[in-house]
Amino acid sequence: MQIDIGNALDTVLAEGLTEEDLDDLDEAVERAHERIERGRAEDEFGYASLNLPTATDPDEIETAVEPVADSEAVLTVGIGGSALGAATISEALGPSDVDHLVLDNVDPAHVRGTLSDLDLDRTAVNVVSRSGTTAETLANFLIVRDAMDEAGVDWTERTVVTTGEDGPLRDLADGHGLPSLDVPAGVPGRFSALSAVGLVPAAIRGHDIEGLLAGGRAAADSLGPSLFECPAYAYGATAYALDQRGFSTNVMMPYAEGLEAFAEWFAQLWAESLGKDGTGQTPVRALGATDQHSQLQLYRAGPKDKLLTLVRVTGQPDCPIPETGIPDLAYLGGTDLGELLDAEFEATEASLAAAECPNVRIELDGLDAESVGALLYEMEAACILAGELYDVETFTQPAVEWGKRAARGLLGGGDFEEAEAVASKERLEID
Amino acid sequence: MQIDIGNALDTVLAEGLTEEDLDDLDEAVERAHERIERGRAEDEFGYASLNLPTATDPDEIETAVEPVADSEAVLTVGIGGSALGAATISEALGPSDVDHLVLDNVDPAHVRGTLSDLDLDRTAVNVVSRSGTTAETLANFLIVRDAMDEAGVDWTERTVVTTGEDGPLRDLADGHGLPSLDVPAGVPGRFSALSAVGLVPAAIRGHDIEGLLAGGRAAADSLGPSLFECPAYAYGATAYALDQRGFSTNVMMPYAEGLEAFAEWFAQLWAESLGKDGTGQTPVRALGATDQHSQLQLYRAGPKDKLLTLVRVTGQPDCPIPETGIPDLAYLGGTDLGELLDAEFEATEASLAAAECPNVRIELDGLDAESVGALLYEMEAACILAGELYDVETFTQPAVEWGKRAARGLLGGGDFEEAEAVASKERLEID
Repeated sequence: MQIDIGNALDTVLAEGLTEEDLDDLDEAVERAHERIERGRAEDEFGYASLNLPTATDPDEIETAVEPVADSEAVLTVGIGGSALGAATISEALGPSDVDHLVLDNVDPAHVRGTLSDLDLDRTAVNVVSRSGTTAETLANFLIVRDAMDEAGVDWTERTVVTTGEDGPLRDLADGHGLPSLDVPAGVPGRFSALSAVGLVPAAIRGHDIEGLLAGGRAAADSLGPSLFECPAYAYGATAYALDQRGFSTNVMMPYAEGLEAFAEWFAQLWAESLGKDGTGQTPVRALGATDQHSQLQLYRAGPKDKLLTLVRVTGQPDCPIPETGIPDLAYLGGTDLGELLDAEFEATEASLAAAECPNVRIELDGLDAESVGALLYEMEAACILAGELYDVETFTQPAVEWGKRAARGLLGGGDFEEAEAVASKERLEID
Repeated sequence: MQIDIGNALDTVLAEGLTEEDLDDLDEAVERAHERIERGRAEDEFGYASLNLPTATDPDEIETAVEPVADSEAVLTVGIGGSALGAATISEALGPSDVDHLVLDNVDPAHVRGTLSDLDLDRTAVNVVSRSGTTAETLANFLIVRDAMDEAGVDWTERTVVTTGEDGPLRDLADGHGLPSLDVPAGVPGRFSALSAVGLVPAAIRGHDIEGLLAGGRAAADSLGPSLFECPAYAYGATAYALDQRGFSTNVMMPYAEGLEAFAEWFAQLWAESLGKDGTGQTPVRALGATDQHSQLQLYRAGPKDKLLTLVRVTGQPDCPIPETGIPDLAYLGGTDLGELLDAEFEATEASLAAAECPNVRIELDGLDAESVGALLYEMEAACILAGELYDVETFTQPAVEWGKRAARGLLGGGDFEEAEAVASKERLEID
């Protein structure tokens, strides 16, 4: 990827970054890079994520999915980091003969609807949970298994398991001889896209998983001690520095439908990694050009607290706009949808700058396996770099435990004081 | 809808609203309600939106869609307020024999892919643009028309137009005798869901558009001068008051897959209406329970600048979770997905309160036409009320014009100084 931080500088914006800011940042990046490299060398918890492109064995994944090679659809049963990476890759790499559906919620109507639309006999079930005890994932998996039983389909012939070293899913895989893969040790879910966690559906769909990993390796080679020579670190450092100046929201706005899920994946990466100790930029998912007609008014005229990250993909296919005799629209005729999208991208970028809103341009050369693999890797590296600059524990997510205990207690899974707190809710109801 | 603002009060949160705050707000609500009622009585620009449930003629819409009653799919070609209301209604009311697809972006690969998946001979094209000159919409419509020509389909027999009194689309509809409907005068796009703009696809899909309007009328009847007796105003006033206390982000988080598009619709409503003069809460779209595994860490442990709006739907269908012999999961067996979702909803609500994050509960009795119509209406009323409290021009969106002129200039549609500004972009590129 290429990054252009011109519209984040004080030559454009009153509150932009100065040359001195960048030099200070560059020194901090150098120190952070050393820390990150040490973590990678020792495969430390979290930092090990940046070793996945070499650690992941694509052949092992291809072998595991062989039994379900006849599938017309793959159904991923997972949630959060166990689903978003796979969804991002499928969407970015585009259509295949094998559909990819994701059960990452416990909405009864949605789960029933999804199952009733599938030919279960030709569906591969890709169940993913490190612990093997994630309530949403296991509940959905039990329901899927039951539906297969009812449809006379042998679920053991259609299921691929990706889980940790031990736990109920590992036991199940061992007990039934299911093809199974590892959630890599030392890698938080949101950093696991370039492992079996993200790659199993891509393999079933016939995408180039070796290419995804090769893209990750190329991105790994691009990491270095200076933000001026490393796009990933330039992004992480710029986002951090702007947050320090009050730009506390980071709008991720790709100009490509294929990157809509990517924006969601990024939102988890950024929120869960950096949302600690009262800090952390709030990621907002948007989509260009669509959201120009929805959110742009706020971005330009609302509070000056937003960084916009605008992503565009070059080398897209043509789609000519037919000529028309309508005078008001004559300017569109003979151009191409891609030109229109580009014009809107550049116009929005400049319109934000003109309104004193910092924005960063990220450009990708196409949406092929290599560029998608590199994008995911570089955003992970950007996030880890930012975590060093914020000085937070990038790789944990302790704040979600309270709610998990409360939910479990509410369902009768033990006595938890959190469940008691729920029962005593303060109310002021209006209806 | 019912609303519960208990978790926004100072009895729960250090920074919560006091009784005195609520009383002051209630006086402001009374004044704002008078202003709103005057606007409604005189059908003033914007305020007229709240008259749509009585002003919209469902029979006229049903008649207009008769020629495309044989459709297997409806393709909405529109953007922003010309697409999101219709998408929200389709998603909330659920599956039908007629699919609803939306072209609300100018991504070449996506447009091509969408068209190639459709049987154009059995597709209804629902083109929506008030001015009839919206670049993205007209470009896409020209491409759709061309694709129909190429497929030997008479586009004039498959197209329904919704547009303003005059402009190129109105001329086209008149010239070809196409069924056409009006974008209602005095109603900004984002407030037009309960007009032809939002209802045409629902009518083609066989949904109960009279029920949607009846829901809107019931909601209109619920408006009154006190926030303690009007859920819509209670929501708008609470959100406004919390923004004044530094809760500058409003996370809209429905616990229902069918309301995912609603969160997007809400985000436009809130952003474009209130993002003015340096003010405006930033709407963030989220989805429960999914985003508990993605965003919740940030919401609880990050900056204390967020209001969470948690929406749940009661009376959902059952989906039992099968019993399992796995000890760690025994607590799930014999319960229902809906119970799990509910437990997660209440646990998250309480976990946010325990972390000093204000949150508001909105409850809907099912996702039928009446409740969806009422929800849309009440959120619009909440937004208009908030606009009065912020004292902004709720119904305009002047900040998006700069970019439109720039894009048009870049495509050769005239000389605009904005296009020149684009050409002189400051760059600092890293690759």
